Amino acid sequence: MADVKNESKVCFDIAPEDWKSWSLTVDGDIARLAMKVPEDGGLRPGYELKLNSYDLGVDIELYDAVQRITFVHPQVRAVVVTSDLPRVFCSGANIYMLGSSSHPFKVNFCKFTNETRCALEEPEMPVFIAAVNGPCAGGGYELAMACEQILLIDDGSSAVSLPEVPLLAVLPGTGGLTRLVDKRKVRRDLADVFCTKAEGFKAREALKGRFVDGTFTRSKWEEGVSASARKAADAYSGPTGEAGIAWPRLGEDWNFVSLKLDDDGRAASLTIAGPKEAPPTDLQAAGAEAWSIRAFRELERALLELRFNHFEKGLILVRTSGDQETLLAWDRALHDAAAAGDWLAQRTIAFQRRTLRRVDNMSRSLFALIEEDSCFAGIFLELALAADRTYMFLDDDGENCVRLGPANGGTYSMHNGRSRLANRFYGEPEKVGELLGTEGPIDAEEAEELGLVTMSLDDIDWEDEVRIAVEERASMSPDALTGMEQNIRFAGGEGTENRIYGRLSAWQNWIFQRPNAVGDQGALTVYGQPERPLYDFRRT
Amino acid sequence: MADVKNESKVCFDIAPEDWKSWSLTVDGDIARLAMKVPEDGGLRPGYELKLNSYDLGVDIELYDAVQRITFVHPQVRAVVVTSDLPRVFCSGANIYMLGSSSHPFKVNFCKFTNETRCALEEPEMPVFIAAVNGPCAGGGYELAMACEQILLIDDGSSAVSLPEVPLLAVLPGTGGLTRLVDKRKVRRDLADVFCTKAEGFKAREALKGRFVDGTFTRSKWEEGVSASARKAADAYSGPTGEAGIAWPRLGEDWNFVSLKLDDDGRAASLTIAGPKEAPPTDLQAAGAEAWSIRAFRELERALLELRFNHFEKGLILVRTSGDQETLLAWDRALHDAAAAGDWLAQRTIAFQRRTLRRVDNMSRSLFALIEEDSCFAGIFLELALAADRTYMFLDDDGENCVRLGPANGGTYSMHNGRSRLANRFYGEPEKVGELLGTEGPIDAEEAEELGLVTMSLDDIDWEDEVRIAVEERASMSPDALTGMEQNIRFAGGEGTENRIYGRLSAWQNWIFQRPNAVGDQGALTVYGQPERPLYDFRRT
Repeated sequence: MADVKNESKVCFDIAPEDWKSWSLTVDGDIARLAMKVPEDGGLRPGYELKLNSYDLGVDIELYDAVQRITFVHPQVRAVVVTSDLPRVFCSGANIYMLGSSSHPFKVNFCKFTNETRCALEEPEMPVFIAAVNGPCAGGGYELAMACEQILLIDDGSSAVSLPEVPLLAVLPGTGGLTRLVDKRKVRRDLADVFCTKAEGFKAREALKGRFVDGTFTRSKWEEGVSASARKAADAYSGPTGEAGIAWPRLGEDWNFVSLKLDDDGRAASLTIAGPKEAPPTDLQAAGAEAWSIRAFRELERALLELRFNHFEKGLILVRTSGDQETLLAWDRALHDAAAAGDWLAQRTIAFQRRTLRRVDNMSRSLFALIEEDSCFAGIFLELALAADRTYMFLDDDGENCVRLGPANGGTYSMHNGRSRLANRFYGEPEKVGELLGTEGPIDAEEAEELGLVTMSLDDIDWEDEVRIAVEERASMSPDALTGMEQNIRFAGGEGTENRIYGRLSAWQNWIFQRPNAVGDQGALTVYGQPERPLYDFRRT
Repeated sequence: MADVKNESKVCFDIAPEDWKSWSLTVDGDIARLAMKVPEDGGLRPGYELKLNSYDLGVDIELYDAVQRITFVHPQVRAVVVTSDLPRVFCSGANIYMLGSSSHPFKVNFCKFTNETRCALEEPEMPVFIAAVNGPCAGGGYELAMACEQILLIDDGSSAVSLPEVPLLAVLPGTGGLTRLVDKRKVRRDLADVFCTKAEGFKAREALKGRFVDGTFTRSKWEEGVSASARKAADAYSGPTGEAGIAWPRLGEDWNFVSLKLDDDGRAASLTIAGPKEAPPTDLQAAGAEAWSIRAFRELERALLELRFNHFEKGLILVRTSGDQETLLAWDRALHDAAAAGDWLAQRTIAFQRRTLRRVDNMSRSLFALIEEDSCFAGIFLELALAADRTYMFLDDDGENCVRLGPANGGTYSMHNGRSRLANRFYGEPEKVGELLGTEGPIDAEEAEELGLVTMSLDDIDWEDEVRIAVEERASMSPDALTGMEQNIRFAGGEGTENRIYGRLSAWQNWIFQRPNAVGDQGALTVYGQPERPLYDFRRT
């Protein structure tokens, strides 16, 4: 196939000592997250990360920083995102990296970057403030837009801009177009002018059109940013704690998640185990080794591994194991602690929600297999509800059961703001409350009757039916399946985040395939070379 | 460019005597719209329209039928959509036609087909009932889903199905996936099973999963369908009238719209003129020659001509002319008559709304040019609000004005359900009411101040600025512009129709470019041949 590039295995298991491009300093309740990308710091050879441009490696560091802000620094109430490289804030995703990446890599790079940006906006996170102290273009401005506030230096030259359309023939696809009109509520015609003007808007014009929230001259800059951060920190009403937990690398030895890749086939088996012990009385002491964190870190890692290192695994078979009562006890403990104001419980829930949304965002088919000794209860039932299909083994004695709990009521809402249960029963909303009121285990027959699973199969049919379903799925066009899943996973109305993943990303995927962007004379291909791009000007 | 096919000019100016594939019979308040496509009736050579499959020609006839149901047959309260070809209802869009069409043609074919289906769902239209009297696949089932009710014959063999994903590696992209989960509220995992099962569901299974609303055995079929139609007709509460108006062909000589194509350039000039006379006291007598119908028929035709016959015109310069007072008098007359229950006024408004939504749906850049002697008032102001940018000439004496009217308050809502004014001022909702309360003309300076136009330019700047803007726009990648416009034209939450055009269509566009569908060994390319499609199984 034409588009297979030699992309090396991506590693997500990093720690601050590995960071090359970001620094995080904490001063009281205000943190400073500064970008300074070394030009030779690219994830693979072939491009230079000039002008604080980023590749996936830089973005994995940002993701790691966000995790550490979440768990290691709970005293932080505001985070100032800025640049330590002179004369530039951030010039966005590196064009040469994009131009030399395969289509699946590009798409997954954008998705991962989007997810980190959405994490900045979670209500459980401190207030992020972009202190744009130099030119800020493309993905740089998209990062700024993911912050709650954008401050731009008024120095006569620094501007914010989205030059993708005029310069590269692609979209500001990391949420840029959506956040512009949905989140920042910029008027659509001003957005049009802005997105087609490569040089962007400087302070005055940017402020007038709502592209930034405040500007300061160079002499007032430090003071202005500090005062804004102080004000934001004082107004922050989310989780805070006095001391964080340690955040060690995840390492290679996982305790709760196993990812088995069938070498010959196109299916991967992902099994996640419930907690082995009752919830601890002191979550803080358990730290990152607490099941609720550890298991979801492993799950997240498995999802990211699949996305970047195993493009050909188009179907994920999701299984769970463990004791349902123990798992539900953890759910309850976490929710009770969160309700009582425990920052660690609140942040853990936010992290679990973020991870489950990554499941919804997988462009892979997901089949949940509810077998004997499975543990699809509470938060693990969300995995079945996130799956495209659910097969449940119908045992003779009715011991194979699923169980609902408070975790299924919206704590772990999807990107469209609805619970997975409400999304599933979009046509029968009255059922959601009924099901949440259900006490006790639900066996296979009842689960099928209630619509909680796609089908239940007894031991005569189970093996054959599941095998055939897997084989059939693995034989279909991966593109058509991705498109289909993206349209039926999320029913009904959409909001900003859903519009980013469903509308913006779809158009970007399309554009990333078009000769006008990626052909021999496409804009991405010839960027930086003397040739001008050559366009087929027919509109579709 | 690789993808230029020899597609002949498409003609939309048809009348029932041209119909080859549809028949419309009216019996009292119930109409019967039956499909019987001649195999050799294709719009161009190279494919046979077997099994009631359709191409654009068949769909233009359906569009014409919908127009005639709207205006010629106001006594109709229910329409039974069925097949007159034995042993099949409709097998969807013709695969060989799709396989041999260029990308822009395919995309515009789907959009036009989608728009006709959305028209069936308008509240001003009679109740459409799909009487599925034989196998119903792909676009056939999508047509059925656009009806208010689907009845399926229970004959042991007829089924409804969406075989696109398993057989063709494309999506059911004419609203199918969206209507399944949004409108029919089918459970997402059942939708998944259905959309990957080429043979579909027969009566019992289809009814159980909400894929159809009723089934009758062969012996009860006629009676069952009649009774359902009778019941629907009795329950219909939309516009009705005793006698319709004549609906002549539009012809080549237009009275109100001029479309000028700059042969060398990539811009088209579309100018629409307001009414020359005061509104008639008897709309019925004026018939299809009434300005409110005639001008919008010409506008619709111009838009369709641009879409299918002038792919390279990427920028439309929209101008208006006429007397604002006269136009606003027409707006008022139409609205008053509609409020008083006049069916023709109600249906005219529905048609105008449909046409303005076609403007929103243009995958072309739209610049409104508000020049001297322009007539951007009331319903014509919607054209400026639909544009990506609006340039207003600032004259010395302040005579160049725009004017709001009741037509701007939501009568002509967009696909997302919002008025264009509310969509424009998504960030300043309070402004919408203020603006609607404005009496009298608004000059260029005030219009810019109020945010109604993008910029006002005096005679020193006008010519150069507009010329540069046009040249710049025409130089950019048409794909990137389409993607950008699709993301910033519609702010905020989305509903079913918006999800069809923004999410479903974007994914389909992407898939229509992918080698897995359209490559040498893609599923669309090899369909019907002995070869099996060859897929690149990497997921993105």
